Amino acid sequence: MLTLPETVEAQPHLNVAANPVVAIVGATGAVGVELLRCLEARNFPLSRLRLLASPRSAGRTMTFRGEAVEVEALTEDSFEGVGLALFSAGSGVSKRYAAAAVKAGAVVVDNSSAFRMDPDVPLVVPEVNGAAIARHRGIIANPNCVAAIATVALAPLHRAHPIRRLHAATYQAASGAGAAAMEELRESTAAYLRGERFEPRVLPHPYAFNLFSHNAEMDPETGYNGEETKVVAETRRIMGTPELPVGITCIRVPVLRAHALALTVEFGEAVPVEEARALLAAAPGVKLVDDRARNHFPMPSDATGQDDVLVGRIRPDSGDPSGRSLCLFVVGDQLLKGAALNAVQIAEALLPR
Amino acid sequence: MLTLPETVEAQPHLNVAANPVVAIVGATGAVGVELLRCLEARNFPLSRLRLLASPRSAGRTMTFRGEAVEVEALTEDSFEGVGLALFSAGSGVSKRYAAAAVKAGAVVVDNSSAFRMDPDVPLVVPEVNGAAIARHRGIIANPNCVAAIATVALAPLHRAHPIRRLHAATYQAASGAGAAAMEELRESTAAYLRGERFEPRVLPHPYAFNLFSHNAEMDPETGYNGEETKVVAETRRIMGTPELPVGITCIRVPVLRAHALALTVEFGEAVPVEEARALLAAAPGVKLVDDRARNHFPMPSDATGQDDVLVGRIRPDSGDPSGRSLCLFVVGDQLLKGAALNAVQIAEALLPR
Repeated sequence: MLTLPETVEAQPHLNVAANPVVAIVGATGAVGVELLRCLEARNFPLSRLRLLASPRSAGRTMTFRGEAVEVEALTEDSFEGVGLALFSAGSGVSKRYAAAAVKAGAVVVDNSSAFRMDPDVPLVVPEVNGAAIARHRGIIANPNCVAAIATVALAPLHRAHPIRRLHAATYQAASGAGAAAMEELRESTAAYLRGERFEPRVLPHPYAFNLFSHNAEMDPETGYNGEETKVVAETRRIMGTPELPVGITCIRVPVLRAHALALTVEFGEAVPVEEARALLAAAPGVKLVDDRARNHFPMPSDATGQDDVLVGRIRPDSGDPSGRSLCLFVVGDQLLKGAALNAVQIAEALLPR
Repeated sequence: MLTLPETVEAQPHLNVAANPVVAIVGATGAVGVELLRCLEARNFPLSRLRLLASPRSAGRTMTFRGEAVEVEALTEDSFEGVGLALFSAGSGVSKRYAAAAVKAGAVVVDNSSAFRMDPDVPLVVPEVNGAAIARHRGIIANPNCVAAIATVALAPLHRAHPIRRLHAATYQAASGAGAAAMEELRESTAAYLRGERFEPRVLPHPYAFNLFSHNAEMDPETGYNGEETKVVAETRRIMGTPELPVGITCIRVPVLRAHALALTVEFGEAVPVEEARALLAAAPGVKLVDDRARNHFPMPSDATGQDDVLVGRIRPDSGDPSGRSLCLFVVGDQLLKGAALNAVQIAEALLPR
């Protein structure tokens, strides 16, 4: 079922017009800012940029292509004339306003989790399942950041050698919890270094030189938190492997804006390291960083601000006696491939050729 | 073979005398300081404390039981009258001076990797294989910090349900690389917050709000670094499971002094979460921190300065279709259970009853 209210019919348009009016919903958030930067950096062909946010942010200006654009308060009437709406203001806002955008004629690329598991809404990482974009009925979902980063690295291997089982331990940055969490990491760390107490306001635990189990809500029955559940479900959906066994531990680490993943990937047969390396080196959106001689592997400091997902430490899993598993270490900018860049890449695929 | 030079015979004494003279070799290092504090906090029955270090540190004083103790330069003649020598000055110093200490009549508890895989030297975590202490011939090895922390959490489960396979992703603190690395983390982070450049001196990569594959030397053939190799070999030896398949990824994170481990443990049969929790709650050296309702699990900020290893996030591995695996998240103070505390606990076991 499509999650649009019944009064809204799915629109016939599967593409956006040339040079559309583009709206960013949640323009002042951590991802919103990066959406604006990505549209600018990639020279996205748009006739006008509209910045929508909560009434609290209305009236502020942000710079796009050298010009000040005023932030407007989001209402259901905001979408008149908008051809493409990039939503990044949380699940509640998407549920409330995406239908209005579609009704007004816009195609919505939604960065929230609101529609990701809706069978009528494609969930897309262009390098992995870009063909799914064509099946949209007005809304396309942009995945969870870990799922997006992981699948960019996994898909090239999976196409050559189907993956049978996956295990992930994550090292997740502050940015996944928003700009305020990034600021809390900076502020609490500065306070720690001055020897001062700091009371967390955004995250539930101290963050300075600390790490903790991901702050998403925990299911008391299963012992898995909402982040882990999302990563598993979305990875399966994007890869087209609905039954893939996935084990996962999501941990928040004191890093600003790039997520790291220690992945163990079991295949149906042994995959030589050299072959995996060649597949990844040739894969779109991947940069191989696998220099054993210099002990140089993917790091957040290298991934920050980079479009590519960095992949390295490719080696047989010493813990799999069958010899059919490889380990990888993967790092991607959470705000770029994990969010804004992927959304803009989806939008680019919607433009007329 | 025992690694002592042939001219040194293994000493007959298997215990140390009551109220021995105790020497700390490497007294001014990160672990040395904690050794001194542990001896004091645990009221270790000693007649005199000798502090040995490089000539560079000689002449400094450190406070023990309210009195200033002068640091002496380490030489081969330093061990006269010493009954117990706690070494923590790196593998090279242990290889060079441990034999002199044993020859002088001391029992050596060595925190370096020099003798850990020597079949004639017990490698001990008292809660796990304390009985092995009795087999020593002058030297007892204190394990790698990750192996010590992991085995405290694994042994109580393994005794009830033998472990068949283990997978670990680590989140390792600066302290494992010494006091200078801890200072580099503080300094480079302060510089980052001021917007200044910082050139790493101790670690090979930027550390402020960053993480990286462990800095131990990488084997270009296997793709595993020396830390990973040690953890695998030592975990097997301490647990008495020489063939245990262990997969591992060791990552350095910007945390000061507690290591965290995401463990996946496969047993021969399904182990109910409640049983695992009960086994761990009753285990020596373990503190259960597994509060799903409050989303409160082991964190470095809680483990720092604590003797116990914190264990939580106990749940079935959603990635194991056989249902025979559990996941755990384990955090321990790297300088305490990962180093100094474990060494002092070994020393306590050597005292006359």
